[in-house]
Amino acid sequence: MALIVQKYGGTSVGSTERIKNVARRVAKWQKAGHDVIVVVSAMSGETNRLIALAQEIQKNPDPRELDVVASTGEQVTIGLLAMALKALGRKAKSYTGPQVRILTDNAFTKARIKEIDAHRIREDLENGNVVIVAGFQGCDSEGNITTLGRGGSDTSAVALAAALKADECLIFTDVDGIYTTDPRVVSNARKMDKVAFEEILEMASLGSKVLQIRSVEFAGKYKVPTRVLSSLTDPDIPIEEEEESGTLITFEDSKMERVLVSGIAFSRNEAKITLPHVPDVPGIAYKILGSIAEANIEVDMIVQNASKDGMTDFSFTVARSDLDKALKVIEKEVSPYIQEGGVLSDPSIAKISVVGVGMRSHAGVAAKMFKVLAEENINIKMITTSEIRVSIIVDEKYMELAVRALHKAFGLDKETRSMEQSRLMH
Amino acid sequence: MALIVQKYGGTSVGSTERIKNVARRVAKWQKAGHDVIVVVSAMSGETNRLIALAQEIQKNPDPRELDVVASTGEQVTIGLLAMALKALGRKAKSYTGPQVRILTDNAFTKARIKEIDAHRIREDLENGNVVIVAGFQGCDSEGNITTLGRGGSDTSAVALAAALKADECLIFTDVDGIYTTDPRVVSNARKMDKVAFEEILEMASLGSKVLQIRSVEFAGKYKVPTRVLSSLTDPDIPIEEEEESGTLITFEDSKMERVLVSGIAFSRNEAKITLPHVPDVPGIAYKILGSIAEANIEVDMIVQNASKDGMTDFSFTVARSDLDKALKVIEKEVSPYIQEGGVLSDPSIAKISVVGVGMRSHAGVAAKMFKVLAEENINIKMITTSEIRVSIIVDEKYMELAVRALHKAFGLDKETRSMEQSRLMH
Repeated sequence: MALIVQKYGGTSVGSTERIKNVARRVAKWQKAGHDVIVVVSAMSGETNRLIALAQEIQKNPDPRELDVVASTGEQVTIGLLAMALKALGRKAKSYTGPQVRILTDNAFTKARIKEIDAHRIREDLENGNVVIVAGFQGCDSEGNITTLGRGGSDTSAVALAAALKADECLIFTDVDGIYTTDPRVVSNARKMDKVAFEEILEMASLGSKVLQIRSVEFAGKYKVPTRVLSSLTDPDIPIEEEEESGTLITFEDSKMERVLVSGIAFSRNEAKITLPHVPDVPGIAYKILGSIAEANIEVDMIVQNASKDGMTDFSFTVARSDLDKALKVIEKEVSPYIQEGGVLSDPSIAKISVVGVGMRSHAGVAAKMFKVLAEENINIKMITTSEIRVSIIVDEKYMELAVRALHKAFGLDKETRSMEQSRLMH
Repeated sequence: MALIVQKYGGTSVGSTERIKNVARRVAKWQKAGHDVIVVVSAMSGETNRLIALAQEIQKNPDPRELDVVASTGEQVTIGLLAMALKALGRKAKSYTGPQVRILTDNAFTKARIKEIDAHRIREDLENGNVVIVAGFQGCDSEGNITTLGRGGSDTSAVALAAALKADECLIFTDVDGIYTTDPRVVSNARKMDKVAFEEILEMASLGSKVLQIRSVEFAGKYKVPTRVLSSLTDPDIPIEEEEESGTLITFEDSKMERVLVSGIAFSRNEAKITLPHVPDVPGIAYKILGSIAEANIEVDMIVQNASKDGMTDFSFTVARSDLDKALKVIEKEVSPYIQEGGVLSDPSIAKISVVGVGMRSHAGVAAKMFKVLAEENINIKMITTSEIRVSIIVDEKYMELAVRALHKAFGLDKETRSMEQSRLMH
């Protein structure tokens, strides 16, 4: 008998029929003798509906009040799922985040969990209940309702699993696991059986949407065994089969043999801005990027070329949707540094990242990457690296070709050769 | 400066436009220097939508979980109204019932308020906030969410006014006050400026829908000055004018001169059942009505005719929608008492009630009522009386004629002659 936390996202509870399916799946685990805590999101579309309603009232809704409104989505789902379990003859009790005292800071719409009072949940589990908790929400120390931001239900689930020392946290979703890269781009992308949590973190920060990044941080901090798996299978499939499905996030140190590269991530939503021939003096980066930051535009990659005659070329990337705004800011705030060449911008670039904890102990990943792209005649426009990642910028039109070539060159299409291998998703 | 509780029902907050209008009205009162607490219902249609969703999952939804789901309707409204007030530059804070500790018993879906912690609300008022509280809901001593039953927001408002010793409780609704009878039946029905709370109680128990009966009991118990008025006027009408509009519920003893009759209520949803010629022995009423009660059918009027040869005719009324069910119960459970004549039933009757606290000290209201109906050739089928009410059953087809004749005979169409006069609604 184990203590299992299961999380179901908005698509998995998107209709009353689907909620009944979730109830069947949960009942199966409970009947097999497990204690089950279920965390659910709002029915798909509901959070957007509530936010739209709020925006009809106030263009930028007051954050405290937006949380009061938005948190009702999950509250509806918990009640409905409890009913569905009771209709199956199981004991079940639902709780909002505040009711089980998921204590957060008071950063409305993006609160962080500080503490969870597991006492009430334990008591209900001992009495044979499935305990259903609303994801995405909690309350601050004054009892104000808070929400954790988009995707926050993942964090609720992992945090509950950590607080209750659950044996496993199962994140049910509409994909069947985490892939070496996006199967829509590389047809022989492989689902990974295991993946290291640092790799997931790196990929999530690059825009992957499989898990909310804070849930992965939580999982890493408290070493919560977390598995991503499909909610679209037959709810009655045997538990032994379900237990082995999806992708498990692991926390072992990479002492055993590992492949170099685990997965390849990419993003099309990038744009590059270059200020050619600016004076290479201290503080120039701050002068340019400070005004961009003040306008609430996030900068991703930054490259300053080698200086020549006291002048340099300064390039950085922003989200494509922020490009026009960024160019206006530069024209207004940084005009003294703009030379006759003006400001150059390129809205048609893509970022490709190669990720793997194996890179830590092996040099040469970047070199191999550049060689592969050179063989395909793809020009690299910018490069950044971290301990377990190399990211490059290329022309958008070469993106798919580059991803496929890299996926093949790093052997990601081949079968796993050892249990210790871990690979990464899009 | 006064402390005012204002309650707005589902129609008054039925769209984001209407919520903005409510905000303008509330802001007007606050700007004039008053402390304002606002209690709101769910947007019209929302509670029904949520209940339908629950019924898709479970035909008879689990009461605890139904309250978890249904209470979200009001929670959405409080957040939206707070935003609308902030958009007008006012300070505002919204609270769910549990957050301000509206403590109830644990009778889910029909809980009763036991206690309210006014401390947090007072603090917010002192800091210049409009305080917005979700109607219809609270929590039990274990923190489980409870709801007060249909129309419960009225009770929330009056209970908050009592707990905070508010100067007045304004119940904003889609009618402009309480009438001597239904204006759709009697075109010169008059809106009353004042009405005694016992009269409202009597009328509410007869099926009037202007106020939830428990809110009137609360108002009576704690002598909360309560006014029913329209939310459909221009939100910016002068406060002095708004303060004098609608109908005020009063608690004075009727020491001063009063008119006999204040108002006339009626209901079409009645049916009569007669068991002719049953043995007139002790316990016969219990034997018949006990089985009806066990089937959860509510009995309204009961008449047992004078005994003759040890036999009697036994009649009672039920809601028309319960008639078939009641007849089946009688056939099954009471068959030994049914004589050859069988069971008689009449689905085409109506109940008319004449109400007034003045009846207490003046006899003759019933006599006058019978005389008026006799003059119109209307046959009376059953009669019951209370201290301040006389109710009769007539053929449904005579109902409107009877109501008009009584309205005129008791002078309800005439202008109020003294401040102490109070009249009653449909």
